[in-house]
Amino acid sequence: MDQLTKITANVEPVGENWIKQAIERQNSLTKPPGSLGTLEDIACRVAAIQKSLSPAINRKRIVVFAADHGVVEEGVSPYPQQVTAQMVANFLRGGAAINAIAQAVDAEVIVVNIGVKHPIPVIAECHPSVHFIDRPIRRGTRNFVREPALTEEEVLSAIEVGIDIANESKAAGVDLIGLGEMGIGNTTTSAAITAALTGLCSTSVTGRGTGADDHILGKKRSVVEKGLQLHVQGLLPPLSILCAFGGLEVAGLMGVCLGAAANRTAIVLDGFIATAGAALAARQHPPCAHYYMAGHLSAEPGHAILLQMLKLEPILNLRMRLGEGTGAALGMKIVEAAVRAFNDMATFDSAGVSAKQAAGEKAVH
Amino acid sequence: MDQLTKITANVEPVGENWIKQAIERQNSLTKPPGSLGTLEDIACRVAAIQKSLSPAINRKRIVVFAADHGVVEEGVSPYPQQVTAQMVANFLRGGAAINAIAQAVDAEVIVVNIGVKHPIPVIAECHPSVHFIDRPIRRGTRNFVREPALTEEEVLSAIEVGIDIANESKAAGVDLIGLGEMGIGNTTTSAAITAALTGLCSTSVTGRGTGADDHILGKKRSVVEKGLQLHVQGLLPPLSILCAFGGLEVAGLMGVCLGAAANRTAIVLDGFIATAGAALAARQHPPCAHYYMAGHLSAEPGHAILLQMLKLEPILNLRMRLGEGTGAALGMKIVEAAVRAFNDMATFDSAGVSAKQAAGEKAVH
Repeated sequence: MDQLTKITANVEPVGENWIKQAIERQNSLTKPPGSLGTLEDIACRVAAIQKSLSPAINRKRIVVFAADHGVVEEGVSPYPQQVTAQMVANFLRGGAAINAIAQAVDAEVIVVNIGVKHPIPVIAECHPSVHFIDRPIRRGTRNFVREPALTEEEVLSAIEVGIDIANESKAAGVDLIGLGEMGIGNTTTSAAITAALTGLCSTSVTGRGTGADDHILGKKRSVVEKGLQLHVQGLLPPLSILCAFGGLEVAGLMGVCLGAAANRTAIVLDGFIATAGAALAARQHPPCAHYYMAGHLSAEPGHAILLQMLKLEPILNLRMRLGEGTGAALGMKIVEAAVRAFNDMATFDSAGVSAKQAAGEKAVH
Repeated sequence: MDQLTKITANVEPVGENWIKQAIERQNSLTKPPGSLGTLEDIACRVAAIQKSLSPAINRKRIVVFAADHGVVEEGVSPYPQQVTAQMVANFLRGGAAINAIAQAVDAEVIVVNIGVKHPIPVIAECHPSVHFIDRPIRRGTRNFVREPALTEEEVLSAIEVGIDIANESKAAGVDLIGLGEMGIGNTTTSAAITAALTGLCSTSVTGRGTGADDHILGKKRSVVEKGLQLHVQGLLPPLSILCAFGGLEVAGLMGVCLGAAANRTAIVLDGFIATAGAALAARQHPPCAHYYMAGHLSAEPGHAILLQMLKLEPILNLRMRLGEGTGAALGMKIVEAAVRAFNDMATFDSAGVSAKQAAGEKAVH
């Protein structure tokens, strides 16, 4: 508990006074006030997070946690569990969607094995844009319809991996962290987490994830229902939710959120699973959410529920449902552009541009 | 008419066979089919435009046309008309929103004076990321509530400027063009164009533009109404619409669309004014629209009407209403990321990743 208690104590709310000062600057820039819409809100948020009216996004990093889920033995995914390990190898070779998109938006990718079940296929060499961290807590979680997925010690160790990565990122000058994940079965785990966080029923929170047909969707719902009956009486604290359902990647994501918030590093969420990790961190300590921006809205139904709970409006809505941090990566570029406009634009005064005419002032023509 | 007829004849429809082949490739990549959502549609469109299963976005250019509007003397904007010239100077110095955002998305900016009324303030030096083209057709349009805004010769000359820029861009290796504009009063002109294109009434197509209060909004609507009564009987051809209402920047944008489509260069629209130019090109020759992607949805109500007419779904919806190409610029980065994923991702075969299990196949655990 020690590191968790310590880091949590270091997460401060973001100051409203910084937001106010940032809005003042926005209104001095050579554009009609408010005309950059959401970009203005984003830049004000980053200014407040960084406690600076010259906020900067110089280094963007996407952290992709990979782990497996014992509940997959219930048949909740049409893909074999080996795919988790195979996709880790694909990330390391630079062949996955997140690699291509991260390169397009100038972000680096950190891949973390935090609990993959099968051996990761050996690859010739790691792509230069990717860094690998191998810290498996165990080879996948236990099956949550039979027993708790993780022990408290395992959960805390996984959270610690996330906190360490957030701290190392801060030291390396990373000023924007994107959340990513990979794990066959993890939409089922995240559905159970979402139900436990919100009290909603399994039908509302469970979606098709990666290619589930009606049959598999039915199984996912009944598995989530069984898990809730076995483990949940009333509202559980975040650590108990993670012990009940896993997953190791979700705990790692929660740790990154806690650590990044403690370091005043802005965080861009991805889809359903990443947001589940972020929601657990915010339940643990609500000011964490002040450091979040939602990269996109996933097609997975539970995602909108979590974003609403976190009071976050997604930056993008492109019907994506891949995970890996792909939605976060695209959102991170929008955040960077928003901050850049805030920083680099001239003011009406400095540019010699006439501001709006005051009411009653004679129009010039 | 000659260059216009010639260029129009060179715009071919985009082949459905290319879209089909591109979808096949999408489905071989290491992601569940369709999981990249809109990004998949975008990449297939660019592949079809470039007639290539290895499409590329190597050079992105935003063309910002600046011009003035005679109708401003009716009091349709709270900003003085000098702001158009002042903002051109701001673009050239690199101090505007489009400069900051273009740099964040690695796009170059071309600023075109195609009809600014007031002298452009002299600046010390042009920002290295910006290029200036000075081809004014006349110092702003005539006031369309009193007389036609432009002669046919003026309209054709402005279209020609756009075609020339599209051709020069092609020669320079630009493979993605973003549309941008600046001109005090140009939401009023675009509202009139939209009404003329669609037959809708002035109330549906006229919005607040840049900071209009209720009083100015009322004036804008009555000005659009007067203009329609004076110039429009039945559906007019695009050139007649431009003669009636202007603007010179809208004609330039129409020319870029025609030229880029003829060159098979993909085009990303910006907001209301840019889309008015694109809609005129598509009315002139419907296959032009095959080359369009909508960068974003502007807060200006007429924009959604034009996008619906063009059957385009906007990539972003960030409540932006600035123009200058800012929404196009952000959309262009999403297009680039989509194309990059399409090109760079490994296939299931090449990556050794197991595909979805066929129905009935035994799950592996």
